[in-house]
Amino acid sequence: MSIEQIFATRTERMKASEIRELLKLLDKPGILSFAGGIPDPALFPSDAFAAAMAEIMKTGSDTALQYSVSEGYLPLREWIAGQMADIGVPCTPDNILITSGSQQALDYLGKLFLSPGDTALVGWPTYMGALGAFNPYEPRYDQLSVNGNRAASDYASEAETTGGKVKFAYLSVDFANPTGETVDQRGREAVLDMAEELDCAVIEDAAYQALRYDGEDVPSILALELARKGDLEACRTIYSGSFSKTLSPGLRVGWVVAAKPVISQLVLMKQASDLHSATFNQMAVHRVADAHFDSHVSMLRTVYGRRREAMLAALEAHMPQGVQWTRPEGGMFVWMTLPAGMDGADLLSYALETYKLAFVPGRAFFADGSGGNTLRLSFSCANEAMIDDGMARLGAAIRETMI
Amino acid sequence: MSIEQIFATRTERMKASEIRELLKLLDKPGILSFAGGIPDPALFPSDAFAAAMAEIMKTGSDTALQYSVSEGYLPLREWIAGQMADIGVPCTPDNILITSGSQQALDYLGKLFLSPGDTALVGWPTYMGALGAFNPYEPRYDQLSVNGNRAASDYASEAETTGGKVKFAYLSVDFANPTGETVDQRGREAVLDMAEELDCAVIEDAAYQALRYDGEDVPSILALELARKGDLEACRTIYSGSFSKTLSPGLRVGWVVAAKPVISQLVLMKQASDLHSATFNQMAVHRVADAHFDSHVSMLRTVYGRRREAMLAALEAHMPQGVQWTRPEGGMFVWMTLPAGMDGADLLSYALETYKLAFVPGRAFFADGSGGNTLRLSFSCANEAMIDDGMARLGAAIRETMI
Repeated sequence: MSIEQIFATRTERMKASEIRELLKLLDKPGILSFAGGIPDPALFPSDAFAAAMAEIMKTGSDTALQYSVSEGYLPLREWIAGQMADIGVPCTPDNILITSGSQQALDYLGKLFLSPGDTALVGWPTYMGALGAFNPYEPRYDQLSVNGNRAASDYASEAETTGGKVKFAYLSVDFANPTGETVDQRGREAVLDMAEELDCAVIEDAAYQALRYDGEDVPSILALELARKGDLEACRTIYSGSFSKTLSPGLRVGWVVAAKPVISQLVLMKQASDLHSATFNQMAVHRVADAHFDSHVSMLRTVYGRRREAMLAALEAHMPQGVQWTRPEGGMFVWMTLPAGMDGADLLSYALETYKLAFVPGRAFFADGSGGNTLRLSFSCANEAMIDDGMARLGAAIRETMI
Repeated sequence: MSIEQIFATRTERMKASEIRELLKLLDKPGILSFAGGIPDPALFPSDAFAAAMAEIMKTGSDTALQYSVSEGYLPLREWIAGQMADIGVPCTPDNILITSGSQQALDYLGKLFLSPGDTALVGWPTYMGALGAFNPYEPRYDQLSVNGNRAASDYASEAETTGGKVKFAYLSVDFANPTGETVDQRGREAVLDMAEELDCAVIEDAAYQALRYDGEDVPSILALELARKGDLEACRTIYSGSFSKTLSPGLRVGWVVAAKPVISQLVLMKQASDLHSATFNQMAVHRVADAHFDSHVSMLRTVYGRRREAMLAALEAHMPQGVQWTRPEGGMFVWMTLPAGMDGADLLSYALETYKLAFVPGRAFFADGSGGNTLRLSFSCANEAMIDDGMARLGAAIRETMI
């Protein structure tokens, strides 16, 4: 028997994400790409990291290179507790777990909550990495509405059809990947109301929260729930944060904030799955965050904000009638809806071949495989001239393939 | 309902490892501890890492701080391929996945192979972190014999009692944690023969392989299987390696070598669970390994080898009759068997209180909770004088609690 036949039969074999395979092809030289949802490396706080790392190796290499606790580096958890207090979530380091990026938090939360057949409520579309993290636990997906236009009882009875319960609502709240949209306070309150009725958890993915370019901050769902209940230990919202969009994704440092019974379980999962996140990385992120977070994020907001302006202006200038797109107040993404009948994947083939232009077709962000006429554009890594050039090519490609 | 009641019912709730909780108490000031199985931080190649890190931040910070591929940093995989060729396993980077320490490899392999009720063959005792990694996938454990004194058919029929199959044999082959013992070539061949009969995988944990202080290298199980079959793609052995004992555990860099279908599945798991291991860390480990691995490991062998000598001499000098211990050819551990009826945990309580002495009681290393009269001693972090002092205290504690 080949070794593949020995793999567990419990879960469906993992499948390569078509879209991630595709992404490998898109970021090639000569291609003008709006595909990758990654920070601009030219904006990394490299000097600050270099200085912090040198100082750590000079004064604390014994600690930095050694095993450490699964919970995470205490000074970093204390720094995060300070940030959380600033957004209306006072908490202690015991409410915080450091993860290897927020992707790991999503994996652990899937493992913690989902039995096969349970229901996860997600946006249509949603972050494809969340679907990737939850899929191995074999959930059923249902479409999360933030308008309160679907009754909790409806979700509950649908969930019973696969023998499970609604275990959580997952949502990226600010300038979401892939839509760029923000859930307003009423929507957040509606999600909380529904979660109360369904008695399920809420996973609040705040990966882009710091990157607001205009408009007013909306209170986090966890802050809203805490305001209702007055006690973090009574809250069902689990907040997932990340340094990947603000300081560096390559160091793999994120965090989770939740009631202590949730954190205790996640700490045990962390211990069993990789012991702890790299000690050195947590120390480096702590030093750079402590000294430079606000000023660095302020610079990012200025630069990315200009790119967003450039993209919205270029779309206005170059898109044919019948094409719609979002106007994000922050983050890295604009979401486009093509006229019905057009297909984002077909458009990509044409745009790549004819205009050496790349973006991500939208279907991969839909749990049900719908959304064929959508696509995601990222403005984070392109300068203003490239953005105007790119949107002109995209407009031409759309015109030439529209019927 | 409290949030704990929403957790998945599929798996037993994760339980805190008693032993890991205990370990937190043992490494306190004033305690002479032989408990922690960790490298001596005074021996870390800190200067080499500091120089490598500075160079990376000077010349490659854009890459080091950015997202990277789930497979791992190619130059590091190439370097590892070179090392594997040196031990009789020529392979390509496509046969290698970089993991966040070898703990992550064990977690992924548990996930890949085990359905609830399947059988994992492990040593009695075995590495407790392996049990921690496999437990969430709800296997049945059976005792792996490397003497060939139990028939494959016997394992297979026992496995059927819980409705599963034997999916793999897991073994730490060189100077194992916790016993310090090495499986000889005949034992390795016997495991391979049995795996062929059972049609199961073999997980070869080689975490301590580089730390040999005397005796001859024994070929790795994967090398033996490759010699039989002539094609890595036909091999059922999965080799797990780590830089944690040689260069640094705090950077969390390990690797897996296996046939490509196994690596492909593990890459997808990596993508879904944490995207990739920290880019910076892989680059730093690559630079230090490339320039200093052999000379650094040679120094470690000299220093740790002296400590092992000191511990064996001190045990000879201070242990009462009726106490037995292993004579490891490498690694960090000596395994002690107390006279029948004595209990390692009781001895620890007494030794802590009376002699401020710590070690790890052996029971936690047994999948069936046996081994009450055993304990693990680590010599990696103590100098020769501390070792003699500690073993004198241990001898006294044993004498005073023996009946």
